[in-house]
Amino acid sequence: MSVIYLIPNTLGENNFDKIFPAYNKEIISRLRVFAVENIKTARRLIAALGLREIIDQSEFIVLNNKTNPQDVLTFLHQNKAKNIGVVSEAGCPGIADPGADLVRFAHQNGFKVEPLVGPSSILLALIASGLNGQNFSFTGYLPKQQNERVRKIKQLEQKVLKENQTQLFIETPYRVQHMLDDLLKHLHPETLLCVAKNITMTNQMIKTLPVAEWKSENIDLNKQQVIFCIGR
Amino acid sequence: MSVIYLIPNTLGENNFDKIFPAYNKEIISRLRVFAVENIKTARRLIAALGLREIIDQSEFIVLNNKTNPQDVLTFLHQNKAKNIGVVSEAGCPGIADPGADLVRFAHQNGFKVEPLVGPSSILLALIASGLNGQNFSFTGYLPKQQNERVRKIKQLEQKVLKENQTQLFIETPYRVQHMLDDLLKHLHPETLLCVAKNITMTNQMIKTLPVAEWKSENIDLNKQQVIFCIGR
Repeated sequence: MSVIYLIPNTLGENNFDKIFPAYNKEIISRLRVFAVENIKTARRLIAALGLREIIDQSEFIVLNNKTNPQDVLTFLHQNKAKNIGVVSEAGCPGIADPGADLVRFAHQNGFKVEPLVGPSSILLALIASGLNGQNFSFTGYLPKQQNERVRKIKQLEQKVLKENQTQLFIETPYRVQHMLDDLLKHLHPETLLCVAKNITMTNQMIKTLPVAEWKSENIDLNKQQVIFCIGR
Repeated sequence: MSVIYLIPNTLGENNFDKIFPAYNKEIISRLRVFAVENIKTARRLIAALGLREIIDQSEFIVLNNKTNPQDVLTFLHQNKAKNIGVVSEAGCPGIADPGADLVRFAHQNGFKVEPLVGPSSILLALIASGLNGQNFSFTGYLPKQQNERVRKIKQLEQKVLKENQTQLFIETPYRVQHMLDDLLKHLHPETLLCVAKNITMTNQMIKTLPVAEWKSENIDLNKQQVIFCIGR
């Protein structure tokens, strides 16, 4: 049975001894077909692992949110005798990228699916936040429009209070400071907020404080990679 | 500033090249204070990494759900000049164990918190399920009492349908077959169910199928380590 290997990418850190088990390189070195969110960053990962020679011997198909699901299915049928590596733009495939479609089809078409261990900013933020990890939810990006975003923030805070469920979400680097401003303005002062910035990188910062204490921190998140978690 | 290192444990697999970045061993070899869910399994991890000599040189404090939060705080104050390793019973600390309390106090007491990359059955199940990873929720164990469990199953399915939110949950090995029976009986035949069994181990099996198709699979989960995910 052919295998779909889910290959984590880096979160911006190229010290593979810190973020990858050795096995990942071993698996990648044996693959010749890759479904990738972005060809450039997938090649960069393979080259950084010292496996440059396999790039020329390999086939790369792009899989992003513009890909037609029918094309994903055709790709699987054409490669059903081969093992396939799925490489995301950053972190684990299938979390916030279109890899999930391919994996769903893979289950329906008799492939074996093997996820490889690697860095996930969501999971690392959660465990380092100190917030409840027995019950948590990740909701991706919040609405762009400010009044809708504020409504969503309050709705997430209600889930923290009523269900004791930690809420994780992300924001694009250029809107992350606005998000922080809204969080500090609209959350209850006692709600715990974790800001997890540039995870696994040398300038990593992960800190959990009550909203009231964050107000005096004067933190600058502009253009940073951030995961937010709220809890109690 | 002292550092709290969050050290993942194995999920039952001792091939560390497959599940741990080399960095984890390097960090563990430098630590002499450990807060652990279970001393025996923490020592076993350290010994299996070939670091047996540090066991005798180290202090181990037990941190489980019987631990008084005041004792956790005292432990932190007594060790504030030292780096501390937190080791869970299995997988990542802080997810389904009391490590989260220690980490929350650590943030409030000026420790730096550094999560190490390692295997998380929840995350590996999610990415390998092919279900929506942009919006998901983990709710731990469902109620033990059957009618309450069935109510909860239906409630989680509603969240899948209304919010397109993938639902992940766990069950103890000796109740896991009952859980599967309830899922197959009470979920809609078209709902997608992922059964992720013995993740990272040699007998790993991860499979996502519509509930209707699972009914003819006759799968035996009795006494297995299982994560369930439902989605659409």
